[in-house]
Amino acid sequence: MPVSEAEVVLLATRAFERAGVAPLAARDAAEILTLAEMMGIATHGLSRVADYVARIELGGIDPTAQVELSAPAPALRHLHGNNGLGPFVARKALSEAMDAAKAVGVGAVFCRGANHLGALAPYLWIAAEAGFAAIITTNTTAMISPAGGRAALVGNNPLGIGVPNPSGGHALLDIALSVAARSKIRDAARTGTPIPDSWAVDAQGRPTTDPVAAMGGLMQAIGGAKGANLALCLDLLVGALSGAAILSEVPSVAKDAGAAQGLGQMFLLIHTKSLLPDDQLSDRMAMAGAMVGESPPLDVGRPVRLPGARAIAALHHARHHGFSPEPRVLENLRKLAAE
Amino acid sequence: MPVSEAEVVLLATRAFERAGVAPLAARDAAEILTLAEMMGIATHGLSRVADYVARIELGGIDPTAQVELSAPAPALRHLHGNNGLGPFVARKALSEAMDAAKAVGVGAVFCRGANHLGALAPYLWIAAEAGFAAIITTNTTAMISPAGGRAALVGNNPLGIGVPNPSGGHALLDIALSVAARSKIRDAARTGTPIPDSWAVDAQGRPTTDPVAAMGGLMQAIGGAKGANLALCLDLLVGALSGAAILSEVPSVAKDAGAAQGLGQMFLLIHTKSLLPDDQLSDRMAMAGAMVGESPPLDVGRPVRLPGARAIAALHHARHHGFSPEPRVLENLRKLAAE
Repeated sequence: MPVSEAEVVLLATRAFERAGVAPLAARDAAEILTLAEMMGIATHGLSRVADYVARIELGGIDPTAQVELSAPAPALRHLHGNNGLGPFVARKALSEAMDAAKAVGVGAVFCRGANHLGALAPYLWIAAEAGFAAIITTNTTAMISPAGGRAALVGNNPLGIGVPNPSGGHALLDIALSVAARSKIRDAARTGTPIPDSWAVDAQGRPTTDPVAAMGGLMQAIGGAKGANLALCLDLLVGALSGAAILSEVPSVAKDAGAAQGLGQMFLLIHTKSLLPDDQLSDRMAMAGAMVGESPPLDVGRPVRLPGARAIAALHHARHHGFSPEPRVLENLRKLAAE
Repeated sequence: MPVSEAEVVLLATRAFERAGVAPLAARDAAEILTLAEMMGIATHGLSRVADYVARIELGGIDPTAQVELSAPAPALRHLHGNNGLGPFVARKALSEAMDAAKAVGVGAVFCRGANHLGALAPYLWIAAEAGFAAIITTNTTAMISPAGGRAALVGNNPLGIGVPNPSGGHALLDIALSVAARSKIRDAARTGTPIPDSWAVDAQGRPTTDPVAAMGGLMQAIGGAKGANLALCLDLLVGALSGAAILSEVPSVAKDAGAAQGLGQMFLLIHTKSLLPDDQLSDRMAMAGAMVGESPPLDVGRPVRLPGARAIAALHHARHHGFSPEPRVLENLRKLAAE
């Protein structure tokens, strides 16, 4: 039986409220995680409700935190998350960035004291629906070595870029900078399947096909030095400028779920209507969509699409027809939400 | 015999002036290309003077173009390069972005009608020296397939990110999104050396170790679909929002040196002093530099450094002790500059 968006948002909201989160903050976080689930990003969707609740119970997240906001310049906001629930703090930052961008063309919110915010795609989608192009990033726990190094120093930091199409058909990019997700290596270790040697290095810094050795080693960044340097610069951009933790200062939640992450995040929004009318942008994005759609695919059964097109289609389908989270996740959510 | 920065800038300025470029525009372009050469980026340094002059002579670049500028919002500028000399238009865009950022905290200049601007590193360095963090990108001729595709649609678009250290020691990232530079494949084809199968695909979209087949095929993006989607989103960000050419609309200068490129570019600058005092940012960046420097290297003779550290060190050395461009390049520059 598929569930509806409204039903799931209510369950997740209740789960957060039961953990002590204020109603509006609980609802913000529930909406973001439900959006990710509907977009097909189950790794950063409803399963995170239980993770966040567990961290609240261990003291790692402050469920009653209020954000502090200052406006040092018309296009800039400085936001202190005070270790509040990640998607609540991030949703607030997104709103502030949209307001500033609407007022002066560009709005950049630099956050510190932030937590894991889920996937970037839901924020990019909300911004695109409102007519904003966006660049969003966050730092994370170090699990990649710097270029030329062999010890963890840089997070597998995600980079999000959104370019809206006022008629629908936004381009949304949400990528982490490792070649493969850590969960894939964990799955391979569980089933004893060798992994490509481009995914990870062992504890001595050597590329490995052994998933167990990989779990004791480090992730490889896309493009080697290029990806590692990109992840490092994103870390400094959001960490150094916001006054947040940087690089290996970010604690590992896997090792200490009760630690405050103290992440740095950036929400940079561009008000596209200030640059060109909606109909012109729609035309350009329709042209981009057509060029991509007519580009010959590697696999004839799988046409080329704009980045994010499948996630947006999944979202529309889920909103209209309901969706089916993994039964174990849904059952757990119902338990967490139960009176 | 090493040459001095002043001497080389003068030669390059004269070369551009002889091609019909106005004195101030010629000087701007000469300074940018000389900076790149001093930073060790010879592929995007003085050798480009002859390339740009040749394109001027073929009608591909308008040496007398004036840029048109509008300010649709306090943080936004729309700049039309009118097919002017690339580094001249880009240097103007950078200045405008710095002015807007100083005024309202963030400044974003979207350019159309732009040309090849050289490397991004010189612009990032100029911004960092003036206390600005920067995100800079441009679209380019399609030479990468989109994710899941097998035909050229996306440029090997470069991404630049700079985070300044007011006490020196900026982090500067300037990467194209292909696994390897096309010039490396060309060199391998010349010497008949096999290339790693991660660099390129042949005309049928299959990874190849044959550099000749690779030259007839396409570049591979870092991280496969991740890099290709990132390049595509950067293209739309700078192309669709500026009204410039997008994706395969960008002509190939290699095939038609007389074509106007019509590129889109973005110079996004953040005034760091609005976010935190210089001494605090210096402290954070010094901490980042220390963490990176103390991180164990793969090769004990090659310590880990911040991105850009080697380029900045090379620049300082070249400024104080002179530098030695490739003799053939310098000789050609002298010829182009001669009365």
